Amino acid sequence: MFFASDNAGPAHPSVIDAVVAANTGYAAAYGSDPHMETLRTRLRTLFEAPDAAVYLVATGTAANALALATLGQPWQTIFCTPVAHIFEDECNAPEFFSGGTKLTQIAGSDKMDPATLAAVVATQEMRGVHSPQRGPLSLTQATEKGQVYTCDELAALTSVARAHDLPVHMDGARFANALVKLGCSAAEMTWKAGIDAVSFGGTKNGLMGAEAVIFFDPAHAWEFELRRKRAAHLFSKHRYLSAQIAAYLENDLWLRLAADANARATRLAALLQRAGARLTAAPDANMVFAELPRATHAALKSGGAQYHLWSGTLEGDDPAAPLEARFVCDWSLPDAELARFAALLDTVAQPA
Amino acid sequence: MFFASDNAGPAHPSVIDAVVAANTGYAAAYGSDPHMETLRTRLRTLFEAPDAAVYLVATGTAANALALATLGQPWQTIFCTPVAHIFEDECNAPEFFSGGTKLTQIAGSDKMDPATLAAVVATQEMRGVHSPQRGPLSLTQATEKGQVYTCDELAALTSVARAHDLPVHMDGARFANALVKLGCSAAEMTWKAGIDAVSFGGTKNGLMGAEAVIFFDPAHAWEFELRRKRAAHLFSKHRYLSAQIAAYLENDLWLRLAADANARATRLAALLQRAGARLTAAPDANMVFAELPRATHAALKSGGAQYHLWSGTLEGDDPAAPLEARFVCDWSLPDAELARFAALLDTVAQPA
Amino acid sequence: MFFASDNAGPAHPSVIDAVVAANTGYAAAYGSDPHMETLRTRLRTLFEAPDAAVYLVATGTAANALALATLGQPWQTIFCTPVAHIFEDECNAPEFFSGGTKLTQIAGSDKMDPATLAAVVATQEMRGVHSPQRGPLSLTQATEKGQVYTCDELAALTSVARAHDLPVHMDGARFANALVKLGCSAAEMTWKAGIDAVSFGGTKNGLMGAEAVIFFDPAHAWEFELRRKRAAHLFSKHRYLSAQIAAYLENDLWLRLAADANARATRLAALLQRAGARLTAAPDANMVFAELPRATHAALKSGGAQYHLWSGTLEGDDPAAPLEARFVCDWSLPDAELARFAALLDTVAQPA
Amino acid sequence: MFFASDNAGPAHPSVIDAVVAANTGYAAAYGSDPHMETLRTRLRTLFEAPDAAVYLVATGTAANALALATLGQPWQTIFCTPVAHIFEDECNAPEFFSGGTKLTQIAGSDKMDPATLAAVVATQEMRGVHSPQRGPLSLTQATEKGQVYTCDELAALTSVARAHDLPVHMDGARFANALVKLGCSAAEMTWKAGIDAVSFGGTKNGLMGAEAVIFFDPAHAWEFELRRKRAAHLFSKHRYLSAQIAAYLENDLWLRLAADANARATRLAALLQRAGARLTAAPDANMVFAELPRATHAALKSGGAQYHLWSGTLEGDDPAAPLEARFVCDWSLPDAELARFAALLDTVAQPA
Repeated sequence: MFFASDNAGPAHPSVIDAVVAANTGYAAAYGSDPHMETLRTRLRTLFEAPDAAVYLVATGTAANALALATLGQPWQTIFCTPVAHIFEDECNAPEFFSGGTKLTQIAGSDKMDPATLAAVVATQEMRGVHSPQRGPLSLTQATEKGQVYTCDELAALTSVARAHDLPVHMDGARFANALVKLGCSAAEMTWKAGIDAVSFGGTKNGLMGAEAVIFFDPAHAWEFELRRKRAAHLFSKHRYLSAQIAAYLENDLWLRLAADANARATRLAALLQRAGARLTAAPDANMVFAELPRATHAALKSGGAQYHLWSGTLEGDDPAAPLEARFVCDWSLPDAELARFAALLDTVAQPA
Repeated sequence: MFFASDNAGPAHPSVIDAVVAANTGYAAAYGSDPHMETLRTRLRTLFEAPDAAVYLVATGTAANALALATLGQPWQTIFCTPVAHIFEDECNAPEFFSGGTKLTQIAGSDKMDPATLAAVVATQEMRGVHSPQRGPLSLTQATEKGQVYTCDELAALTSVARAHDLPVHMDGARFANALVKLGCSAAEMTWKAGIDAVSFGGTKNGLMGAEAVIFFDPAHAWEFELRRKRAAHLFSKHRYLSAQIAAYLENDLWLRLAADANARATRLAALLQRAGARLTAAPDANMVFAELPRATHAALKSGGAQYHLWSGTLEGDDPAAPLEARFVCDWSLPDAELARFAALLDTVAQPA
Repeated sequence: MFFASDNAGPAHPSVIDAVVAANTGYAAAYGSDPHMETLRTRLRTLFEAPDAAVYLVATGTAANALALATLGQPWQTIFCTPVAHIFEDECNAPEFFSGGTKLTQIAGSDKMDPATLAAVVATQEMRGVHSPQRGPLSLTQATEKGQVYTCDELAALTSVARAHDLPVHMDGARFANALVKLGCSAAEMTWKAGIDAVSFGGTKNGLMGAEAVIFFDPAHAWEFELRRKRAAHLFSKHRYLSAQIAAYLENDLWLRLAADANARATRLAALLQRAGARLTAAPDANMVFAELPRATHAALKSGGAQYHLWSGTLEGDDPAAPLEARFVCDWSLPDAELARFAALLDTVAQPA
Repeated sequence: MFFASDNAGPAHPSVIDAVVAANTGYAAAYGSDPHMETLRTRLRTLFEAPDAAVYLVATGTAANALALATLGQPWQTIFCTPVAHIFEDECNAPEFFSGGTKLTQIAGSDKMDPATLAAVVATQEMRGVHSPQRGPLSLTQATEKGQVYTCDELAALTSVARAHDLPVHMDGARFANALVKLGCSAAEMTWKAGIDAVSFGGTKNGLMGAEAVIFFDPAHAWEFELRRKRAAHLFSKHRYLSAQIAAYLENDLWLRLAADANARATRLAALLQRAGARLTAAPDANMVFAELPRATHAALKSGGAQYHLWSGTLEGDDPAAPLEARFVCDWSLPDAELARFAALLDTVAQPA
C-alpha cells in the first residue's frame, strides 16, 4: 500500500525494453543520435509546433531551472504559488541557474488566481530600478496538490503575463495526468493557452529519469544548449534518454499510464471520502489530498499504508485532530493494493 | 517642503570639512590609511567589541548584501519582512551577492513578530535536502516604516534564530535614529541583543556616502574582505570613506543629527494627526507613515510638499479615499519648512 | 573502425542487466535505496576509506564541477593544465557551479609538472586581496591525452598543493584505465597520494551514465548534498544510477573493461608507429595521440576510419604536413575492427 | 619620493571644490540630479556620441566588471592579456559580475598582438557547445605597463573581434594618460577605433573616486542600470560622483593632469636610463617599468624612494641581479620630489 510518491515506482517495462534495444554499437553522443532526431520530430508533431526547440534532461528540477533561467534575467522575479515545486522543493535551483532571480509568491492556493496574479504583477516594479523586475510566470500543471487548470484557466493566467510581456513556463512534471484529465491536445494545453516553454515530465509517469524541455519559440535554442552543457545536464550517452521518451510516446503509453494512475486516484478519493475524509483539493490527477483524524492516520500507518502527512505529525494530544495527508497513485500501483487499502480503511475509519 | 527621502539631503558641513582635510598628500590605499586604523578602534570602542571586524563601503545595499552573503550560504533562505529593503528595494542584490540565496518573508507587518518567525523557521527544512535551508535572519532597525524595536523585542527575535543556530544581521540604514529613540548603547542594541553583524548606516544621516559593516565575530573578516574586493566595493582612495565616518562619530555628531531628525518627525506626526491623518506606523524615528484623503494629498502636493504616496495614486474617483504616504525628515530639514508645511496643512485639511 | 570517442559506445550487458534487475517495485527515492547503501560500503572498501562520503551523479562534468565547487571558494582560482576537460570542454561549468572561480593554467603539457605548478602557485597571491586566491588543484588521471601519472608523480604534485593547504581533486573520467596501467590500489592512486576528492568515472568505460564523487574527508558531505540537489543532479529514481555502478564493480568488471581498452590502444599505437606515425603522448591508457601526414589521414578517413583530428584539418595545401589525431579505444571495440584498421593502414601509409 | 601608485594621491583641489559646491540643499537621488544631466551631455559631446549611454560608478573594478557583464554572457570567455587588471587584480570580479565567464589570456606581452589574438579567437569554439564561447575583447589603454596603443593598433585588434561579432571593452583606468600621449580625440581612441564600451577612469588622475561607463550603443542602457543597482553600485547621493567628473572635465583639467603626470614619467624614465636602468616597457603614459640591480633597489629604498618591485625581492644572494620595478607618477607628484630622486639616483647607481 504505497502512496508515498510517484518518484519511487519502477519504469514501465516498455521503457526498459527500449533502453535495452538502444544499447547496440556506437551512437553519436550528446544528442546527435538518430533516436533524438526522430524523437524531436515526434514531439514537434505532438505539440503541433514544427519549429519548437526540443531538448532532454534527466531530472525535473533541471528542466524547470534551465527553462526559467533561459526565459528570464537574474534581476527579475519569477511569479509562482507558495507551494510550487520551484519554490519549496528545489533547494534554490531556480535562483542558482538564473544567477540570482527572486521568486515572488502569488498567495492563495495551489491553483493560482488570475486576479491575485494581476494585482501582484501590477505593483512589482513600483520602485523602478530598485525593484526586482517582472519576470517569468511559472504554472504547475497538474498542480502540486493534484489539481488541473482548464485551458481557459491557463489562458486567463497567461493573459496577465502577456499584458506585461512576461514569458510563461509550465512545470509539467505531471503533464500527462493533466492532459488526460482535460482530454484536450498538448497544443491546446500549452502554446494555444499562452505557454512559452514546458517541462514535459516523464519520470513520475513510468520513466527511469527523462524529461523534455520544449520552447515553442526556437529563438531560445542555442542559449538553452549552452546553459544545459554549462549545468552539466548534457548527456554524452544521450541515446538512453532519447530511448526512454520515444518509448513513452509510442502507442500513447504515456497517456495510458497517466489515465490508469488518475483512475486509481479517483477511486482512492472515493474510498477516503466514504471513510469520512475531507478532500482539501480536487483530485483531478493522480494525487489525493485529504484530512483524516490523527488516530485514523496512526491506524492506517500501523496497518501498512505508506504516505506523507502534509500537516502535523502523528505525535499530538488530540486523536481527533484533522491532519492533511497526500496520497499518490503512480502508474504501477497494483489494483490489489488499492483493495487492501480499502479493506484497511474499513477497519480503522468511521464513516462520516 | 521636502519630505521625499533622507537620500536627497546634503552631507553635514563637518563631514565635508573632514573630507577636505583628508585631501593632503599621499595616503595608503585600500583601507590601509591611518584614518581607518583610528576609526576601527573608535568603532570597536563604541560597540564595546574589541575584536570586531570593521569595514567600510559606500552604499547601504553593499553593506547589506555583503554582510548577508558572508553570514549565509547560497542554498539557504534569509528571513525578513515583506517590506524589507533587502526584499523590495535592492533589485536582487542579496541573491546576487550570495550566489542565489532565497528570501523568505515573515508576513505580518514591518515589525517582525517572534511567534510568526518561529513558526516559519520551524517548518523551513521540512523536506530535507529539497528545502532551501535555514539561513540568516535580517532585521531592519529602525524599520522601513520608521518603527523601532526595543532591545527586548530584538532579543526575542534573535533568540528564535539562535535556537536554530542562525546568524542575525541588522540593516541599520537608520541605526542612529533607532539608537537615540531607545537611548541605549550601541552594544545593547546589537550584540547584547543577539545581533552578529550590522550595517551601520551613515548616508541617510548626514554623510556623502559611507556605511560601516561590523562583524562582532572576527572569524568573518578575511572572507568579507575578499567578497568586498570581488564585488568592486573596496575603494582605492579609501581615506574619503574613513574621513566621513570619523567626522560622523566626532562629538556625537551622528546622534545629534539623528535626534534632530527624529524630533522633526515627531512634530510632523503631531501636525498630521491634528489635521486628521491616521498614522499607520509608530513614528519612532525620522519617518511618518500616515493616511490622508486623496484630495488632501492633491492639495498638499499642489502647495509644494514633496513626499511619496505609499499606496494608491492621486488619480482616482474618490477624493475622500484614504491614501498612505511616507514623510521623511532628514537631518538638514529646516524648521522653517516644517512651519510652512504646518501652515499648508491648515489650509488644505479638515481637522479630524 | 570507430576511434572517435569512448562516449559513443554502448553500456556493457552486465550493466544493462543490473538496471533491468533493479526495475522491480517501489524503491526509496533520492539515494535512499538499499542499492546505494550497499554500494557506498563497497566503494569505501575499495578505497580503504571507511569514512568517505560517496555520491552518484550522471555526468562527468557534474562530478567535476560539484566536487570543485565544494572544495573551493568563488574568489579562488583552480589550478589545472591548459588542456584539462574542466578548462576546455565544460562550457564554464566549474565557474558556474562555484559562483565565479577562475581557472589558472599550469602551462607545459597535458601532464602537469610539479616545478611549474610550484612556481605558479607561489606567485598567485602576490597582490593580497586583489589577487584571485589560491584554490583547488585539479589533476586528470588518466590525462586528456591518455597519459598516466605514477603515484609518485601524483604525490609530487599534491605535495605542492599541500604546502599551501590547497585541496586536490582528481578528474577520474578514465580512472580505471589509469589504475590498471599502474597496477596499484585505488587508495594508492588517490588519498595515499594526496588526493582529497575524486570524480570516479564510469560512463566512458561501459556505463550508460553514472559517476561517483568521493570525498575522503566526510566533512564535505552535507554541503555536497545540498549543492547536488541545487544543481538538479539528485536523481529521484536513483536506483538506476546505483545499479550501474554496482554492476561496474562486480567481479572487477570495471578493471577488465579498462584493461581490454588499454590493450587495444597499445596495439593501435604499435600499428600507427609501424605505419610511420609519431606518437605525441605516451599511450598509457585507452587513447593514442599521433601525427600522420595529411594525405594519410585523408586516406584513412576515406577508408572508413572514424577519429578526430586534434590539430589542423584535411583541407590544406601540403599533403605531407603532419597533423595530430586522437584515436580512442572504448571497451566495446571489436578486435576485428582493429584488424581492419591495420589492413587499411597497410594500404595507405608508408612505413617510417 | 612616492612612486608606488596613482591610487594614493589626493584629489585635485578643483574636484574637492566641486564636491563642496554640490553640497547644498536637496538633490534628486540615484543619478537624477541636474549635475548628472549636464554631465551626460558633456560626455556625449566629448565622445561625439549623442546617443551614448553614460553612467557613473565609484571604482574602476566596478566599471570594468559591470561593462563586461553587460557586453557578454556567462558561458563565454573574455579575451585579455595575462597582466590585465581584470585578470590579475580584481579578485574574480569579472567572473562574479558576469555569473561565471572565463577569461582567456592572449599571451605575449602587456600590449596585445592582433595575430595572436586572431589565432586564439579562431580556435576558441572548436568543440561547439562544450567550449566556452567567444566573448568580449577587453583592452587596457594605457596598458598595465604604461604603454599606449595607437589608434591603428586598437583598430587592428578590434577588427579581429569584429570579424567574430565580439564586443570590445576598453579599460580606461588611465584613459587620459593615453589620450594626451596620442593627441587624438576621445572618439578616435574609442568608437572610431572599434570600441563598444569604455571604463572612463578618473580616480587615478585626480578624483576622489569616480569613473564613467560609456556604451556607444544605448541598447545596453537599461540592462546596465539594473546590473549597477543589483551590484550595489548605484549611489543615492549621486551628486558627489557627478560633481567630481564635471570638475574633471572642466577646462580640460583631466587632460592637464594627465599631461603633467606623463611628463614626469618621461623625465623619470630618462633619469633611470641615465642611471643604467633598462626600460622593460615604453614609458608612454605615467608609469615607468625598469630593471635595476638588486643592490641599487636596496639603496634607493633605503634612501626613501617608495615604489613596487615587479619581479623578485630585495632578499637574494646576487646584488647585481636585475629586478624589474614599477615607478608611477601621479598628477600630484611635486617636481621637487623628482629632483630629490634624481639626486638619490646619482648617489646610488652606476651609469650604464
